[in-house]
Amino acid sequence: MKYLKEQFKMLEIYEPMANNVTGIFLNANEAFYDTPYEIKKHISEYVLSHNINRYPDDSCENLKNSIAKKYGVLPQNIAVGVGSDEILDILLRSSASNKNVLSLDPSFSMYPIFTMMNEGNFIKIPLNDDFSFDLNRTIEAIKKEKPIVTLICNPNNPTGTTIDVASIEEIAKLNIGILVIDEAYEDFSNNSSINFIKKYDNICIIRTFSKAYALASIRLGYAIANEDIIKMLDTVRAPYTMNTLSQEIASYAISHFHLYKDKISEVIENREYLYEQLKNLNIIVYPSKTNFLFMYLNDKIKNKMIENNIHLRYFGKYTRVTVGNKEENEAFLNVIRENL
Amino acid sequence: MKYLKEQFKMLEIYEPMANNVTGIFLNANEAFYDTPYEIKKHISEYVLSHNINRYPDDSCENLKNSIAKKYGVLPQNIAVGVGSDEILDILLRSSASNKNVLSLDPSFSMYPIFTMMNEGNFIKIPLNDDFSFDLNRTIEAIKKEKPIVTLICNPNNPTGTTIDVASIEEIAKLNIGILVIDEAYEDFSNNSSINFIKKYDNICIIRTFSKAYALASIRLGYAIANEDIIKMLDTVRAPYTMNTLSQEIASYAISHFHLYKDKISEVIENREYLYEQLKNLNIIVYPSKTNFLFMYLNDKIKNKMIENNIHLRYFGKYTRVTVGNKEENEAFLNVIRENL
Repeated sequence: MKYLKEQFKMLEIYEPMANNVTGIFLNANEAFYDTPYEIKKHISEYVLSHNINRYPDDSCENLKNSIAKKYGVLPQNIAVGVGSDEILDILLRSSASNKNVLSLDPSFSMYPIFTMMNEGNFIKIPLNDDFSFDLNRTIEAIKKEKPIVTLICNPNNPTGTTIDVASIEEIAKLNIGILVIDEAYEDFSNNSSINFIKKYDNICIIRTFSKAYALASIRLGYAIANEDIIKMLDTVRAPYTMNTLSQEIASYAISHFHLYKDKISEVIENREYLYEQLKNLNIIVYPSKTNFLFMYLNDKIKNKMIENNIHLRYFGKYTRVTVGNKEENEAFLNVIRENL
Repeated sequence: MKYLKEQFKMLEIYEPMANNVTGIFLNANEAFYDTPYEIKKHISEYVLSHNINRYPDDSCENLKNSIAKKYGVLPQNIAVGVGSDEILDILLRSSASNKNVLSLDPSFSMYPIFTMMNEGNFIKIPLNDDFSFDLNRTIEAIKKEKPIVTLICNPNNPTGTTIDVASIEEIAKLNIGILVIDEAYEDFSNNSSINFIKKYDNICIIRTFSKAYALASIRLGYAIANEDIIKMLDTVRAPYTMNTLSQEIASYAISHFHLYKDKISEVIENREYLYEQLKNLNIIVYPSKTNFLFMYLNDKIKNKMIENNIHLRYFGKYTRVTVGNKEENEAFLNVIRENL
């Protein structure tokens, strides 16, 4: 890549799975269920009854109103992006250059990439051996490194572990840089820090429509924060990144959250069943408040998963398994049962 | 904005028109017609007949195939982005840092913004007084400034003027940095430089679905270039920026380009009519090969346009007017006729 600047030479094209791959997809933490029919019907009718030749509403007014209403905040506390990814990128692009950005290890794989792309200095604070969170270690690191941004994924991807909101508040109180709480999986955990945005002006919650809402296809994430942080995000975001149909689907979906309640309960039930079964099979697996489980599978089992077209995500010696529907989960468990 | 980095302090939130504004919109160079019904019907049915809970195809395989087929190039010559804007941003993000980026003046207003955001040094080469292009001046400037990227909008926004492809080839031959030809309005001009991508490995054509395709709502642009430039764009682009429905609509639309032919002819007819009428009214107006006209309107007329809710875009003492449908154009002309 002749024209690529030197700092980006280590970037590799993200190689997603090829299009023609079949099998059971437990690799991307998507919902195992499709978006409810009522929501799909709404957008199907919307396309036919509205013109689509004009630019989107760049202020995302309806969508911001819908999100604000759900959480009891103001539309001025909401920024919208092309997935949580765009929010993270813009936030770091706004602020990280030549400064420290702190996160936990292991955590979401895009944090170091977006930090590098925005010329921040990425610092990892290790989780405990059982992937639980060490509040004191984290507080000491923040005091020492003075990060402009601290990125905490809660519940954490890929480990599934949670941090209690009292600990989050202890970190917010330090008032050192922006404290990002990435709550992509919070609908499965009921452990949100959203209420803190009224109390601490340095906290920024990030959420997504890609998980519980079964809308990974539309690429829509949002931030909830103090007005000053939101203004910064909307200033640095390029105009019109959020297309009209994704805005409309998301606005309708969050206003009809009740349509997802049973499905979210089913994810939690399936997760707990999977966890119990894995424990019974003596698999090392960590408690999770998400729609996935983090575990240790040996090479024989991992190879059998690949042979059986059961797609998982691998992190060094560990494996992350998205909770599927009952049949998918049994197929996954059967490969373990047959290869112990 | 407490956390915003110093270099970005001059950025202002792009203030789009408020949602509740009514009137005649000749301000954003959108198509005056809606997307053909057959295309809307396709996407309306697609939503109901496909799951939308999974992440998009990040390789944009079907869409790249459709674009490649239309232009007789390979899918490896295509990169896709959230509007031409994302392509421009990624291209400059990949390469521009601390280097010169050259463009014409006046030209597309986002060029200096994306250059600044990516820490390039923006250099403007003035067009002639009648907004025509001076090849020698431009070649001399490129030889002197050695830009990593030269941005040429052809036909040019906001002036509507074109550069012949022989002149483009003269610039490509210099082989200094990447030569971007932004062909957002090329469907109205039939003056494309796409064939040069097989001959010159430094040329990058950018196109969009926002103009002739009447799909500004979906936010989709693309680059056609040598494989090495495409690889760079796909490396620096964040994963999954292109949502599923926009990919599907665009792929269907470009494969059914014949559905737009009459509408494009109508734009050209309306443009020529508008141009003749303005000339007859002694308005200073420049020949255009786009879906808009660049002209001089006095303050009295401009104020009357605002009073009549006819929305135009103002560039210093000049005004850019998107070609509308017959009724919209007559309403616009009537304001001039009544206020001469």
